[in-house]
Amino acid sequence: MSLQETLNWRSATKGYNGTTIEDEKLDQILEAIRLSPSSSGLQPFKVLVIKNKELREKLQPISCGQDQIIKASHILVFAAWDEYTTERVDSFFEFSNQLRNLPGSSTDGYRLTLLERLGKQTKDQHFENASKQTYIALGFGLLAAADLRIDATPLEGFDSEAVDELLNLPAQGLKSTVMMALGYKDEETDWWGKLERVRRAKEELFIELH
Amino acid sequence: MSLQETLNWRSATKGYNGTTIEDEKLDQILEAIRLSPSSSGLQPFKVLVIKNKELREKLQPISCGQDQIIKASHILVFAAWDEYTTERVDSFFEFSNQLRNLPGSSTDGYRLTLLERLGKQTKDQHFENASKQTYIALGFGLLAAADLRIDATPLEGFDSEAVDELLNLPAQGLKSTVMMALGYKDEETDWWGKLERVRRAKEELFIELH
Repeated sequence: MSLQETLNWRSATKGYNGTTIEDEKLDQILEAIRLSPSSSGLQPFKVLVIKNKELREKLQPISCGQDQIIKASHILVFAAWDEYTTERVDSFFEFSNQLRNLPGSSTDGYRLTLLERLGKQTKDQHFENASKQTYIALGFGLLAAADLRIDATPLEGFDSEAVDELLNLPAQGLKSTVMMALGYKDEETDWWGKLERVRRAKEELFIELH
Repeated sequence: MSLQETLNWRSATKGYNGTTIEDEKLDQILEAIRLSPSSSGLQPFKVLVIKNKELREKLQPISCGQDQIIKASHILVFAAWDEYTTERVDSFFEFSNQLRNLPGSSTDGYRLTLLERLGKQTKDQHFENASKQTYIALGFGLLAAADLRIDATPLEGFDSEAVDELLNLPAQGLKSTVMMALGYKDEETDWWGKLERVRRAKEELFIELH
């Protein structure tokens, strides 16, 4: 299928039928998330892949009671670093240099400039930037799911502090940012997918400066 | 090409050769951005598509002097709404209901709940949420470019206030969030693409809760 067909096929699924998606398809979606780009390549997040029913039953009431939480096959919870600590940044460069078989000195200039810039920012600004990186990953995950004809839904509007507590994120220096449901749609209850798609016209969304 | 091949092919291009990309390929990338999902479907942003050389020469010094600004074919500047005003939200629902041939009453419940929730948030929180939506669009744009084997680079680290002023964004209730360069890479100067890709192992990035 072409990307254009995939883009037209995709919609935010509102009703799932409870079927579990195939392991190898889940793996391909996670791989797209893993290969998504991030600021300075830091990948400042983790993704919780939730299949457990009891956990999802606890998640639902703190996620605006959204039905998808239970009826989808899996819920991915994107959780960003609460802070770009020096330790986290240094650990990334160490990992990167090891993988590329480069001496630490080869990235010291870049690393120190980055740390200096981050040092001027607040913890909230760090989290805000890390959060945005999870939205690129969300975009990659949504397109990868659609490419496999797996239904998906991006989910905001949950009580992030309650979700953080439920998933023990603060102890890991993480905070939830956005979720993604994965599964197969239920044709009966997926009312949304039956509505005509609403998008601004090209002329309205883009400003061309030749 | 499969999505997996596309994901493996893609990298953040550091050196461009100055060649202009084909109009129909640019159109397909913009179409992927237009079809990306956003919170409540509001599409709270515009995208400036910059080809103009003089403008790019002014953009470069306020974008950390990044070479791509000049050598790429096009620069896309994502600019999010500075605020979810009642007028903007109402105007979206009017547009949506018109397109779907539905009475305004059909979405009044949802619209009013949304406005109530937004009313409890600050202007900064509105912009932060709108910014994140541009990162989903960025993700879609990056994958669409890669699918067409067009080189691309996500760009942060610019002076957003200076960029806003240069592009007259405040007068339009917009603020720049992230940029994306598009073009064809220069094999000589694209040193980055020659390095081994660095990504956390699956076991480190994902936490599976069965």
